[in-house]
Amino acid sequence: MKSYRVAILGATGAVGQEMLRVLEQRNFPVETLLPLASSRSAGAAVTFRGQQIPVVETCESAFAGVDIVLGAAENAVALAWAPAIARAGAVFIDNSSAFRMDPQVPLVVAEVNPEDIQGHKGIISNPNCTTIITLTAVHALNAISPIRNMVVSSYQAVSGAGAGGPVELLAQTEALSKGQDYPPKVFSYPIAYNVIPQIGSEQEYGYTSEEMKLHYEGRKILHRPDLAVSCTCVRVPVLRSHSVSVRLGFDHPVSVAQARAAIENAPGCKLVDDLQAQQYPMPLDTSGQDLVYVGRIRQDIVDGCCLNLWCCGDQLRKGAATNAVQIAELLVG
Amino acid sequence: MKSYRVAILGATGAVGQEMLRVLEQRNFPVETLLPLASSRSAGAAVTFRGQQIPVVETCESAFAGVDIVLGAAENAVALAWAPAIARAGAVFIDNSSAFRMDPQVPLVVAEVNPEDIQGHKGIISNPNCTTIITLTAVHALNAISPIRNMVVSSYQAVSGAGAGGPVELLAQTEALSKGQDYPPKVFSYPIAYNVIPQIGSEQEYGYTSEEMKLHYEGRKILHRPDLAVSCTCVRVPVLRSHSVSVRLGFDHPVSVAQARAAIENAPGCKLVDDLQAQQYPMPLDTSGQDLVYVGRIRQDIVDGCCLNLWCCGDQLRKGAATNAVQIAELLVG
Repeated sequence: MKSYRVAILGATGAVGQEMLRVLEQRNFPVETLLPLASSRSAGAAVTFRGQQIPVVETCESAFAGVDIVLGAAENAVALAWAPAIARAGAVFIDNSSAFRMDPQVPLVVAEVNPEDIQGHKGIISNPNCTTIITLTAVHALNAISPIRNMVVSSYQAVSGAGAGGPVELLAQTEALSKGQDYPPKVFSYPIAYNVIPQIGSEQEYGYTSEEMKLHYEGRKILHRPDLAVSCTCVRVPVLRSHSVSVRLGFDHPVSVAQARAAIENAPGCKLVDDLQAQQYPMPLDTSGQDLVYVGRIRQDIVDGCCLNLWCCGDQLRKGAATNAVQIAELLVG
Repeated sequence: MKSYRVAILGATGAVGQEMLRVLEQRNFPVETLLPLASSRSAGAAVTFRGQQIPVVETCESAFAGVDIVLGAAENAVALAWAPAIARAGAVFIDNSSAFRMDPQVPLVVAEVNPEDIQGHKGIISNPNCTTIITLTAVHALNAISPIRNMVVSSYQAVSGAGAGGPVELLAQTEALSKGQDYPPKVFSYPIAYNVIPQIGSEQEYGYTSEEMKLHYEGRKILHRPDLAVSCTCVRVPVLRSHSVSVRLGFDHPVSVAQARAAIENAPGCKLVDDLQAQQYPMPLDTSGQDLVYVGRIRQDIVDGCCLNLWCCGDQLRKGAATNAVQIAELLVG
């Protein structure tokens, strides 16, 4: 079996660390692993397959001979190194939002549109975490009857803001319990015992950049340029796993039984839907694994052509690292 | 100025305690205050206007001579004592859901339908906390253009489950920080660093009792039997103040400018809406006061006849105690 030289761009961050774990757990055929990071991580090392691997400072020559670069860095870093990655002949599977809406770049959720990786030109984008979690569930229902629109309110974990998010939530909570103050740094306001209805910056029509991602990325991934998504993204004091309250508008009514059967058979999904038995998806249950849990499926009271559902998924795994590694698997498979 | 003999049924609970504070702060003309509770609170006392007042065990004779009973107890207690309150000739302003949908009983949000208290037959119901917070904001917009429907996802504080809710959240968080286990008692699952997408029991169509309250109570309060509300109610690890992500469907388009002006002029509301300046309602800012904060107002991407907004309010004050005292003020005013 062929094996590959894999680099991780941003190997010391929250997503980069998770990519290391996922590559190992899924037994991806890694010949050599190259952890890349900025000069701030000089001297650091990462653990892969039980070995300590020193982190290398990203530079043009580092990409020589690399087959696949998994991008776990921010947009500016992805944009800065994409030309060097292309010159080295490596495929860049990028988790930043820098290339997602580029018509030349496939934007792929492994269970939704794997065929789109064909014809890539060196870059394949990994979608936004909330987009991946929502669409993994929604895709299965879209196959029953086309989805016209979605109304989504999110409950997003602090680790979505990077490794500093959980540090801040835990330290702030601890400080509060001692009657001390812990000024927010990662978030704009205290997140302990609070919710913050802004993720990203203002983009258009009063929506934030995070809220518009599900709209634009959803259209591209589902090949539905007419799809409309109205999203409210909210940070909640949860360490890990995003939740979404989703209302789906269909062209034709879809029954709850049909929807449940579709989710039950959908790759990447787990149906957890028994309100009487108090079974529904929750962040604590979905952290550290790869499935999107789906429950609270019910016909909408307002519009019989709508269904409501509640989905939870680990945004660092399926929402980022796992989906990126799945794209790599599709690429070499 | 006439003053009144006021009893609080369930004076030692979270809402009862808040009623004491609100009566005092709003300077309600109380001649005598009678704190009632079950035998479990025997020997307890409450503080009112700087005085310690012993709690009295609820019994038929306790209501003799009382003018107004503020109900802060659960349904069974409200149902059990309503006949005795009626026989004593007192008016029962009840915060339980026992009488809310009774056609004989006005269901009143003070800023929305104060006229409904006329013609009461001895009982006036205080609506559900999420209903009060949502409708205080929505009513102002309904006056511009009739609202057809609402899609709501809530972010509800643990104190909505009673005084034991915050105790459990804080103790559970503290236990976790020490690596200890704190089994849930008030909630069905751990609430520290988690969200739970169930409040109340299963009622109909897969919705919970809490979710259906906004539907049925909203119809009654707004006098709109055709109003449809689809709600997803979620418990979040916030100590106090409920938040709601609301999508309003109007008969005709309402502009963001119109909506902002209406909220700015609406009694009981405060407009906090400047995304660029990171100004929007949050639970930490809205706790311990009486206004419903409204922000994130924006035209819906899916449907131009819809507006989205984000509201926060203290569910123990405006969502319960304050609204009950406002009803008492309307009654004696």
